[in-house]
Amino acid sequence: MIHARILIRKLSSCSIFKSNARNLNTMSTSYQVLEKGVPNSKDYRVFFKNAAGIPISPLHDIPLFSNDSKQIYNMVVEVPRWTNAKMEITLAEPLNPIKQDVKKDKLRYVANIFPHHGYIWNYGALPQTWEFPEHIDKATGCRGDNDPIDVCEIGSRVAKRGDVVQVKILGTLALIDEGETDWKLLAIDINDPVADQMEDVQDIEKFFPGLLRASVEWFQFYKVPDGKPENKFAFNNQAKNAAFAKAVVEETHQFWQRLVSKEVESSKISCLNATNESSSFLISAEQAEEYFAKASDGGDAEEVNESINKWHFEHLQQSS
Amino acid sequence: MIHARILIRKLSSCSIFKSNARNLNTMSTSYQVLEKGVPNSKDYRVFFKNAAGIPISPLHDIPLFSNDSKQIYNMVVEVPRWTNAKMEITLAEPLNPIKQDVKKDKLRYVANIFPHHGYIWNYGALPQTWEFPEHIDKATGCRGDNDPIDVCEIGSRVAKRGDVVQVKILGTLALIDEGETDWKLLAIDINDPVADQMEDVQDIEKFFPGLLRASVEWFQFYKVPDGKPENKFAFNNQAKNAAFAKAVVEETHQFWQRLVSKEVESSKISCLNATNESSSFLISAEQAEEYFAKASDGGDAEEVNESINKWHFEHLQQSS
Repeated sequence: MIHARILIRKLSSCSIFKSNARNLNTMSTSYQVLEKGVPNSKDYRVFFKNAAGIPISPLHDIPLFSNDSKQIYNMVVEVPRWTNAKMEITLAEPLNPIKQDVKKDKLRYVANIFPHHGYIWNYGALPQTWEFPEHIDKATGCRGDNDPIDVCEIGSRVAKRGDVVQVKILGTLALIDEGETDWKLLAIDINDPVADQMEDVQDIEKFFPGLLRASVEWFQFYKVPDGKPENKFAFNNQAKNAAFAKAVVEETHQFWQRLVSKEVESSKISCLNATNESSSFLISAEQAEEYFAKASDGGDAEEVNESINKWHFEHLQQSS
Repeated sequence: MIHARILIRKLSSCSIFKSNARNLNTMSTSYQVLEKGVPNSKDYRVFFKNAAGIPISPLHDIPLFSNDSKQIYNMVVEVPRWTNAKMEITLAEPLNPIKQDVKKDKLRYVANIFPHHGYIWNYGALPQTWEFPEHIDKATGCRGDNDPIDVCEIGSRVAKRGDVVQVKILGTLALIDEGETDWKLLAIDINDPVADQMEDVQDIEKFFPGLLRASVEWFQFYKVPDGKPENKFAFNNQAKNAAFAKAVVEETHQFWQRLVSKEVESSKISCLNATNESSSFLISAEQAEEYFAKASDGGDAEEVNESINKWHFEHLQQSS
């Protein structure tokens, strides 16, 4: 029942921090998180190694499912709760390290939308998923946004960048962004004290009253300070339930499988990976190590402007 | 118009950080902020030196008014926005350094009350004020709480612990805590981009819609996770205006003057100070330096428990 390939735990000397090992009725997972490049520079990257010390892609090499019954999912944390730096898995680069998004030649920070501070969940993505842009979703009528599927992890713990967290899926919001479906899964860390009591979307309001409404508002308004219009949701802003959300994940997982088997192509995504035996993008451990070694150790740190701390009220002033 | 005593700017070798020098139609102020003791230990203290390098009391030696027209006030920041550590000016110790409050033998952190993260303003106190416990306030019918008067600074910038910020007073809430009046002044940093357009309490809703209501709720609920009842306010939860607030400050300033001139006494407060010529608690620069030197450089760092990051929803669950 346990996959031998990720049983060994070995820390590289350049490991900066390490995602929490979790082992509660799930596979024994252990990943190392390694920073390269100067922090706050455009060269900064967060790489992953598996338990055998091989550099891997967080998008392609971390399994979607964390247990054999396929009820627990792995999630890669890109943005810890209450932080602003817009960190994301780099689709275009070999091994898909996490890096900070760049806008107008500057590192991107998401605005603080009153009453919120930064992201209000641990935000990240499910590995081995892809929102296929040529697929028109039956429910929303919109195309996929060409990204792995996004997750809002609502548990008590503030995760760390690069953590691989085992989550239960509770539901999903359907953000519609410029005509594309951008699913926002709602999930909880299985190690959260209330996770055992939560099974579906209605449990969110029970245990975290107000959080669902806050989540809708957050996505609705978070780009308003950057001069963009409010975001819209499908389904009259209502979250869909866990069964619906899991079906969406299953679909995006299948699209990902077609992608890494070269059935369909994306010019935007590097599919190189170190562990998917059947993938035509499989590379050797040595090649993976080379990509990792080639990543910049330098970079010019940008001064973090005090304006990232501003609290924005524009969304409330507009509606008054 | 400029007080010579605080014109010189000199950094001590052990200065860790320094409060921003501000000079916009106010006196030239410059204070050094010096940390002693191990961070996250009970020995940790934040001391102040004036521009001449003399250790001073932030409570007694920083002037209440920052300009000669007495419209701008100095505020000492104890808790920066979005942080949880309950830091406060130590009343009982010589030179009144800032330290972290201790409860049940543990460093105290304030709970995160959904949707808020930590304190939602830069929180601190006005120097040279005292809420005299033997005085029964005409408006609230309650006694003073034996502390300097508290301030919520609402501007965009996230201040640093120990910053001495020049503020405009806009209004005040009247928290009633176990039968004592605990004024919560509402103020804005005069260097905030919108400070020039703000004169009174109604401007808060105009420029920071929702913040006044959030502030009331914050104080109402912030002790609920610690098993305490909701806090109450006088005046039906309404904030009083700037003129009212300034009159309260003036009153507390007079009580402070009576305190440092030994007209009234408080066993709780060390009144030692380095610059108030008429005070019977005046000490020499050498004595002040001795107190500073005597403060511990050690301490046992407490591990910061992950539970301080928990988001609390109890206040919303109770009211449903």
